[in-house]
Amino acid sequence: MSEIRTESSSPTLALARALIQRPSVTPDDQGCLDLLTARLAPLGFRFERIDANGVSNLWARRGNAAPLFCFAGHTDVVPAGPLGDWQSPPFAAAERDGYLVGRGAADMKTSLAAFVTAIERFVADSPQHKGSIALLLTSDEEGIATHGTRMVVETLAARAETPDYCIVGEPTSATVFGDTIKNGRRGSLNGVLTVHGIQGHVAYPQLARNPVHQAAPALAELAARRWDDGDEFFPPTSWQISNIQAGTGANNVIPGKLEVVFNFRFSPASPAEQLKAQVEEVLDRHGLDYAIAWQLSGNPFITPRGDLVEALTGAIRATTSVEAQLSTTGGTSDGRFIATICPQVVEFGPINASIHQVDERIAIADIEPLSDIYHGVLQRLLAV
Amino acid sequence: MSEIRTESSSPTLALARALIQRPSVTPDDQGCLDLLTARLAPLGFRFERIDANGVSNLWARRGNAAPLFCFAGHTDVVPAGPLGDWQSPPFAAAERDGYLVGRGAADMKTSLAAFVTAIERFVADSPQHKGSIALLLTSDEEGIATHGTRMVVETLAARAETPDYCIVGEPTSATVFGDTIKNGRRGSLNGVLTVHGIQGHVAYPQLARNPVHQAAPALAELAARRWDDGDEFFPPTSWQISNIQAGTGANNVIPGKLEVVFNFRFSPASPAEQLKAQVEEVLDRHGLDYAIAWQLSGNPFITPRGDLVEALTGAIRATTSVEAQLSTTGGTSDGRFIATICPQVVEFGPINASIHQVDERIAIADIEPLSDIYHGVLQRLLAV
Repeated sequence: MSEIRTESSSPTLALARALIQRPSVTPDDQGCLDLLTARLAPLGFRFERIDANGVSNLWARRGNAAPLFCFAGHTDVVPAGPLGDWQSPPFAAAERDGYLVGRGAADMKTSLAAFVTAIERFVADSPQHKGSIALLLTSDEEGIATHGTRMVVETLAARAETPDYCIVGEPTSATVFGDTIKNGRRGSLNGVLTVHGIQGHVAYPQLARNPVHQAAPALAELAARRWDDGDEFFPPTSWQISNIQAGTGANNVIPGKLEVVFNFRFSPASPAEQLKAQVEEVLDRHGLDYAIAWQLSGNPFITPRGDLVEALTGAIRATTSVEAQLSTTGGTSDGRFIATICPQVVEFGPINASIHQVDERIAIADIEPLSDIYHGVLQRLLAV
Repeated sequence: MSEIRTESSSPTLALARALIQRPSVTPDDQGCLDLLTARLAPLGFRFERIDANGVSNLWARRGNAAPLFCFAGHTDVVPAGPLGDWQSPPFAAAERDGYLVGRGAADMKTSLAAFVTAIERFVADSPQHKGSIALLLTSDEEGIATHGTRMVVETLAARAETPDYCIVGEPTSATVFGDTIKNGRRGSLNGVLTVHGIQGHVAYPQLARNPVHQAAPALAELAARRWDDGDEFFPPTSWQISNIQAGTGANNVIPGKLEVVFNFRFSPASPAEQLKAQVEEVLDRHGLDYAIAWQLSGNPFITPRGDLVEALTGAIRATTSVEAQLSTTGGTSDGRFIATICPQVVEFGPINASIHQVDERIAIADIEPLSDIYHGVLQRLLAV
């Protein structure tokens, strides 16, 4: 990268600031998508707005050929929290001490700006590039996310318009910019277990059935169980009790029921249906009278090493000299939805230490390099 | 028992009614002790009032010789509850359908009346009886009971004035009047266990320590444990969890601590200190970081077969033709305090099915027989 830029002239910083200044708390887009559309329109993109239930979604595409490369992201931000705790107003997009500070600076308006400036440069240099470039943007990633990326993905799937490659601009870097690519995510499966007993007085246990006593060995077995061994990309599947409750408060009453709330973070080695069956087998074997309400929050996905991972790690290395690591840790993201229609999905973006916090920030020194990395991926995959 | 009485002339019924008409809800004696004192004074009793903290206590004794026989009981009653649910006002002491109905009718004002009428007859027939007769009465048995029988017992112990025999007039009969004598009670030991873990996010279990997972195998072991085998009089010691709680309500947070409230009902085969040590050994062995707040609610006591049990079962048999069974089931009573200074303590009284309920009652046909039984015990133990 031989270009010399002063911070004040950085086009990515300027666009990021314009986006941060729109207080687009989920699901209110506040015109962010219009701003991005205005920048992409001169480049020959076609636009499709897929809005529903107060959520704004944009599908933008340049070209018709394969392969289809897609940048994905969200314009919405989490609430600012206590305003008085911010050193500068959260939507002022202040530059201070080498940082751009504001809600969305890291998660993920700077990534959106970097998508656009990377595409602008790439199209200027390679107007006849291979394949197609697309953007899938939503204003509900931080919320319930039912009418966001998931809905756009369903629309695309219905007409068989499916990306070959996708980079989600989530802030994945941990301690040094460029150190981490998420090439998959674990699945998340919630359960609410109710164990029924028979209430009674502690002085007459023979007339009662204590659901805590009945459940304890089953819970011990589930807590000790090794569900799978993990693999190169995934840690072993983990089961955790988050809440447990039984009893009326009185210390002389045997409770009539026990409620246990638990969560699996699981790898592809242990599909959700298999985990459900394994839990129920344990509870059945211990003779419990129980019910479970299951809720699948997200299936796992994985993008093995291949064209996309190679292009991205190469672009990161060329820009920052950092050797990116592949990781599947952390919570869920919209990557789980896109993975259902796209064989290669990864997430890459800024350092995530400040996200969802007061004084959310991104180092100004990382902003143009982020655009350079996205640009480098386009060059590696689509340049003629 | 060759006496013929009509119900209307029954002296025990009349005194029981007078006591019930005083609404002596714990700890307000409402003059019950004065009424009883007035009846006993002509018989040569000496009286000592040991009142404290709003609780009225009476120690009354006739004679100085050994053995010292004692009737024990309480003048206080539990609250009436919803007045509208009673078929007659709870303190009216109505006679209806063969029952005396009112708060305290079974627990235990009729027993107090029967103590008095039994003593009146016995002293009239045997003014020079062997030993001494005493009454230990309190107005706080149903409440916290700190300044009731426990305090009188401490006073008596301090001056080494300790009964040889004691009958507590608690309603012990189950289905047929006379069927059950309580010749002991289990102990009760409460514990509040706090297990400390390290709070964290369910997606990063390696950074947390789940106290529910850690405690589950220890709780399973405690729930499955056989503490002792019981004996002729006691069922096996029982351990029951009454309450368990962990978690913030959020389903993605590993809780930082677990709280478990439990209770032992224990026999003399498993002393409280031994049970505490056994619980702590299990928790230690499972490597838990924990604290327990112990609270000993009462030690167990037992009165083996002997003079008192023989006299009481004989009097019951002679009066009702019922063969009384010995039992140690049920909750705690003031017998636990008296047992610390008296080698033979039993509880015997009316059918307890209605106690602490609306329309508390005693069959009028059982009232004079109750006095006859208490009278029969005095004859068997103290007649010349």
